[in-house]
Amino acid sequence: MLNFNYSIPSKIFFGKDQINVLGDEVKKYASKVLLVYGGGSIKRTGLYDKVIEILNSNNIEFCELSGVEPNPRITSVKKGVELCKENNVGLVLAVGGGSSIDCAKVIAAAYYYDGDAWDIVKNPRKINKVLPVATILTLAATGSEMDTFAVITNMDANEKLGTGHPDMAPKFSILDPTYTMTVPKNQTAAGTADIMSHIFEEYFSNVKSAYVQDRMAEALLKTCVKYGTIAFEEPDNYEARANLMWASSLALNGLLGYGKNSSWCVHPMEHELSAYYDITHGVGLAILTPNWMKYILDDNTVDKFVEYGINVWGIDKNEDKYEIANLAIEKTREYFSSLEIPSRLSEVGIDEEKLELMAKKATRHGKIGSIRTLDTEDVLNILKASL
Amino acid sequence: MLNFNYSIPSKIFFGKDQINVLGDEVKKYASKVLLVYGGGSIKRTGLYDKVIEILNSNNIEFCELSGVEPNPRITSVKKGVELCKENNVGLVLAVGGGSSIDCAKVIAAAYYYDGDAWDIVKNPRKINKVLPVATILTLAATGSEMDTFAVITNMDANEKLGTGHPDMAPKFSILDPTYTMTVPKNQTAAGTADIMSHIFEEYFSNVKSAYVQDRMAEALLKTCVKYGTIAFEEPDNYEARANLMWASSLALNGLLGYGKNSSWCVHPMEHELSAYYDITHGVGLAILTPNWMKYILDDNTVDKFVEYGINVWGIDKNEDKYEIANLAIEKTREYFSSLEIPSRLSEVGIDEEKLELMAKKATRHGKIGSIRTLDTEDVLNILKASL
Repeated sequence: MLNFNYSIPSKIFFGKDQINVLGDEVKKYASKVLLVYGGGSIKRTGLYDKVIEILNSNNIEFCELSGVEPNPRITSVKKGVELCKENNVGLVLAVGGGSSIDCAKVIAAAYYYDGDAWDIVKNPRKINKVLPVATILTLAATGSEMDTFAVITNMDANEKLGTGHPDMAPKFSILDPTYTMTVPKNQTAAGTADIMSHIFEEYFSNVKSAYVQDRMAEALLKTCVKYGTIAFEEPDNYEARANLMWASSLALNGLLGYGKNSSWCVHPMEHELSAYYDITHGVGLAILTPNWMKYILDDNTVDKFVEYGINVWGIDKNEDKYEIANLAIEKTREYFSSLEIPSRLSEVGIDEEKLELMAKKATRHGKIGSIRTLDTEDVLNILKASL
Repeated sequence: MLNFNYSIPSKIFFGKDQINVLGDEVKKYASKVLLVYGGGSIKRTGLYDKVIEILNSNNIEFCELSGVEPNPRITSVKKGVELCKENNVGLVLAVGGGSSIDCAKVIAAAYYYDGDAWDIVKNPRKINKVLPVATILTLAATGSEMDTFAVITNMDANEKLGTGHPDMAPKFSILDPTYTMTVPKNQTAAGTADIMSHIFEEYFSNVKSAYVQDRMAEALLKTCVKYGTIAFEEPDNYEARANLMWASSLALNGLLGYGKNSSWCVHPMEHELSAYYDITHGVGLAILTPNWMKYILDDNTVDKFVEYGINVWGIDKNEDKYEIANLAIEKTREYFSSLEIPSRLSEVGIDEEKLELMAKKATRHGKIGSIRTLDTEDVLNILKASL
């Protein structure tokens, strides 16, 4: 296990009706907030009205940034910063999924940055100070409700980049599983794939001595496999929505990565797909993951796949190593298909044209990946296998 | 999954040589500290000298409370409070295992309490304000380095009671696995039993819908089983010491209990053994645990034991339910024996004399336990079976 410094300061209010803490919690930080949300589903479900009612009854003033994109754009960030400055906002409150939360985080950081907001996405070291951020989560997927990161897209530059700062961790997040019951089936599926991919990125590491982290990763993967299916089939199943929601936060709050030297690889590949084709992030991840697994399976990695197969998929440990590994990969592919996620890039409108360009961009800072590092050619091979 | 409010504010500096952060971290809170430690093992290992060197070179003044007992006593707490008041201390720094840490926490709380320190052990609600606490951990066992609780013994009253307050959570804890390499074999064994018992107390719950917590509990149990043995046989094995150390903190920082309604039972029983016979806490737990498991196994609990047997001990899932359950309990008993922990109360000097008295005291506030509640007679039966 490698050395690490653990700090997870975000408070979580988990469960039905926890929104009742909102007024008191906001008032610890501010008397005026910027509400950040997406396409309006929170208006259809009544959550918007509930939030407004609580803010009003607590004499908390607010302004609004609506229409944040599924892959949130730097243009939205800039609008949000302007609103904060015009209205003297003291806290940015995201109501939605990872898109709204990521947008809120970068608004909060850009508020204190004297220059183009895109600068602090390209270079997180330029972030010095951040407005308090809080979230009300409506989609189990990105883990952004409990971490320090954000991903923002610049469609002009075809760039989708991650940024982060310790102070971008939400001060508090309200996680009420009932808010995710109205999430459409395809988004529930994509969200589950996103959670699983976060876990894979930490699990398939070249650090073999972080046993406790690996077993916890398997615990979360088993949770996704079990409850992803149930939530897909029974959207109103509280137990499924609750377990998925908590798994999404734990997958990315640091717990699985502490003690390892992460170098993610499927996410950087997918970010290029989203940057050029604006596809759903979780769908891109689900398409790439089994092909990436197949590509990196070799004598150095097979033991890890055996652990994965036995501990997550319950495959008989007495089988041949490569049989277990290949079966585990096949089960992963089948699982995503069972959630009706497309399994080929061609199904989401991606053809050969930009594969080389995207492979180059995914590796522009050097090789990616941990248990097996990938260069441009490796990435291109994986993209081609995913067509 | 039940509603919960998550807050784990303690920072952890984990790994070799992390003690180098000590000076800077202490200075965030205080310029004068009370050092709290036990029987002097930290002097033999050189850790004491290192701490003093760092405090001196950072111009941090200090006074000392040494000789804290393995079951820390209220008399030591009172001495510590006096030292803090005489010396105008701003932070209480425990260097040791759970005993020193628990003592430090209650000193920090009693500092601000106007009355007999035993009052705040008997009634945690009397705690209003707490001096900052920090820890340098030398034994993987109690989890006190990352939680809000403390257990203190009053030998005059034959009482060993738990108390707690959110502000008793350490501001930071330094977890360097190399400090645990000199822990004697019997203490390594008892510490492992203590960690496992903390996990069992949350795992064997009547809340069946907290799937993610249950799988994480199994992850930590597997870690204990694997690395308890290795640390016992190879005290210098860094990987084993690191995994055990981190498991001890995660077992009790809240992660496993959030979303459940815990009601511990083996710990309350053991506290009576320690209060009357001053035995090693982990030894008492290891003796009681398999007998408690055997006693509560019935048609309502068997499925939980099946999960435990399959997921922790790798027992074939195709066997008969009760066979799996009984084998799992037997493996638990054998595991503690393999660590050379006594398996009967008679081996640690406890006979029938006080069993009835201890059973009554363990249940003086009512029934204990979650997956199956135990009354005085149940506890007496378990104690008798453990003789």
